[in-house]
Amino acid sequence: MAEPNLFGGIEAGGTKFLCGVADENGVVLDQIRIPTTTPDETLSAASAFFARAQGRHGPLAALSIGSFGPLSLRATAPDYGSITSTPKVGWSQIDLLGHFRQTLDVPMALDTDVNCAAVGELLFGSGRGLDTFCYVTIGTGIGVGLLIGGAPHGGANHPEAGHIRLPRAVGDQAFDGICPFHGDCLEGLASGPAIRARWGVPAEQLAPGHPAWGIIADYVAGLCASLTYIVRPDRIIIGGGVMQPVNMHEQVRASLERQLAGYDSSVAGLDMNTYVAAPSAGDSAGLTGALAMAYRMITRQWPMHWAIGAQQNAASTLAKVS
Amino acid sequence: MAEPNLFGGIEAGGTKFLCGVADENGVVLDQIRIPTTTPDETLSAASAFFARAQGRHGPLAALSIGSFGPLSLRATAPDYGSITSTPKVGWSQIDLLGHFRQTLDVPMALDTDVNCAAVGELLFGSGRGLDTFCYVTIGTGIGVGLLIGGAPHGGANHPEAGHIRLPRAVGDQAFDGICPFHGDCLEGLASGPAIRARWGVPAEQLAPGHPAWGIIADYVAGLCASLTYIVRPDRIIIGGGVMQPVNMHEQVRASLERQLAGYDSSVAGLDMNTYVAAPSAGDSAGLTGALAMAYRMITRQWPMHWAIGAQQNAASTLAKVS
Repeated sequence: MAEPNLFGGIEAGGTKFLCGVADENGVVLDQIRIPTTTPDETLSAASAFFARAQGRHGPLAALSIGSFGPLSLRATAPDYGSITSTPKVGWSQIDLLGHFRQTLDVPMALDTDVNCAAVGELLFGSGRGLDTFCYVTIGTGIGVGLLIGGAPHGGANHPEAGHIRLPRAVGDQAFDGICPFHGDCLEGLASGPAIRARWGVPAEQLAPGHPAWGIIADYVAGLCASLTYIVRPDRIIIGGGVMQPVNMHEQVRASLERQLAGYDSSVAGLDMNTYVAAPSAGDSAGLTGALAMAYRMITRQWPMHWAIGAQQNAASTLAKVS
Repeated sequence: MAEPNLFGGIEAGGTKFLCGVADENGVVLDQIRIPTTTPDETLSAASAFFARAQGRHGPLAALSIGSFGPLSLRATAPDYGSITSTPKVGWSQIDLLGHFRQTLDVPMALDTDVNCAAVGELLFGSGRGLDTFCYVTIGTGIGVGLLIGGAPHGGANHPEAGHIRLPRAVGDQAFDGICPFHGDCLEGLASGPAIRARWGVPAEQLAPGHPAWGIIADYVAGLCASLTYIVRPDRIIIGGGVMQPVNMHEQVRASLERQLAGYDSSVAGLDMNTYVAAPSAGDSAGLTGALAMAYRMITRQWPMHWAIGAQQNAASTLAKVS
């Protein structure tokens, strides 16, 4: 590339939008944190940020957005590029790509927040050196991103693996689940709001010895078992608020090992301590992943050389804006 | 390619091995059906076939095998290329690739029978024109092949999606399931042997109005729901002996629609009649898929030009040998 290219990224979350501009070496030149209020307010602030950043640093080569969903990601769909039906008030049927196309004439891509976080883990975290892995977040919702053959998996649309159904855990038949569509799908049973609905307190207030943790671990491990038998990943990375209060990774590993029951031999050979891992790319994994996806749109490859510089840079800059 | 290339394929099944040699245009020059007896006998007959075929038609450029499993498919595994632990007596820890490497010095690949059948469907059947789809077989076992982005999905090893666990169907709590590893995983509940163990007769002898069909349809649809939310395929193709006796595809579609419950909008927009389909590439889909995988090993692309010629050819030749 003769001219220096600049890349824009957005991590669009339910509470905040992180927007950033990075150069070819992953140095974050400009960054902002915008509270998620109304689409008008939040998206206008994001557009204004990129206009200012371009005035200061030069034109963007590409923009990539990692967003909460559900999203319409099939290029041929009439609502391609939009958030579709989200419980987040005011944000249903919001045309994210369309908004930014009004002011930016560059190649643009939209993917899920979890796929962008997975890319962040691929470059700087627990996904380094892996070909195929799952990135799971257990929080307000249950989301799953898939890196398959080193690339984010889309298919006909993005995965919604939080909505699979699993056998009910032993002694857990009474609670109906809170998913408005499926009742007792995984998200209806094991997400943060499901925990609060069932036990009356948020996950972070449940005592470490509370029986809830064993039940939640069984459900999360059930998801891991299905991901194992369907996707056959090299690793499953699990983050999110519900995984924080107690040593959930250890409980999930033990339950997963029981559920897989040694079948088949390649599964029996898995080291659970590395197979089920926590994220390690830091809080800015989603934004960094989005920036890396913008880079890849132009260069057709991941910016493996960003690894250390971008991580330190993003971490220090984020500290300033948050 | 200056020299004409010849491609070898094997569909390695529990009852028969189909071996074939095709030219660049998908014309099957030679073909044989070998009963699956002992590994020594069956594999020697297969090697002898390829030796004869090469004597007659010239050297092979590549050989591809689609086999029953479980298989070890990770190139770095010590038992790479082998059948691992199979219930089929005498066939555990059999080094398939190793056997053929003794007599053939050409690029070789091994994949699952279901991935090869999926490739057959991609070229000549219900997968034509699709980017991402699942090929499911409900029979002696429950197998799933995945074509993702137009290529067979492997991951750390091949999928074993027949072994996922699902909620038990209403009124179906008493039967423990027959999977020696998991008990009531999907294969333990809905495979041909599970049906025989529970209702005392093989699937083909169950009356069309038997309540078993509704239960089996719910489990197969449960698999489809998990595949939908995790893989987001364009289509799910379902074949196998258990799907034959009654109009199971119709029952699976109805149950799947109930289970997905309209979430999310891209799922709500699916036409179940095309989303859940029967295979249509014929009985030789597995062999043709293996031949196509050998072709792709050399040319890096699928032989889309084989479509009509190869299908007719394979069908007519198969009639002779079976």
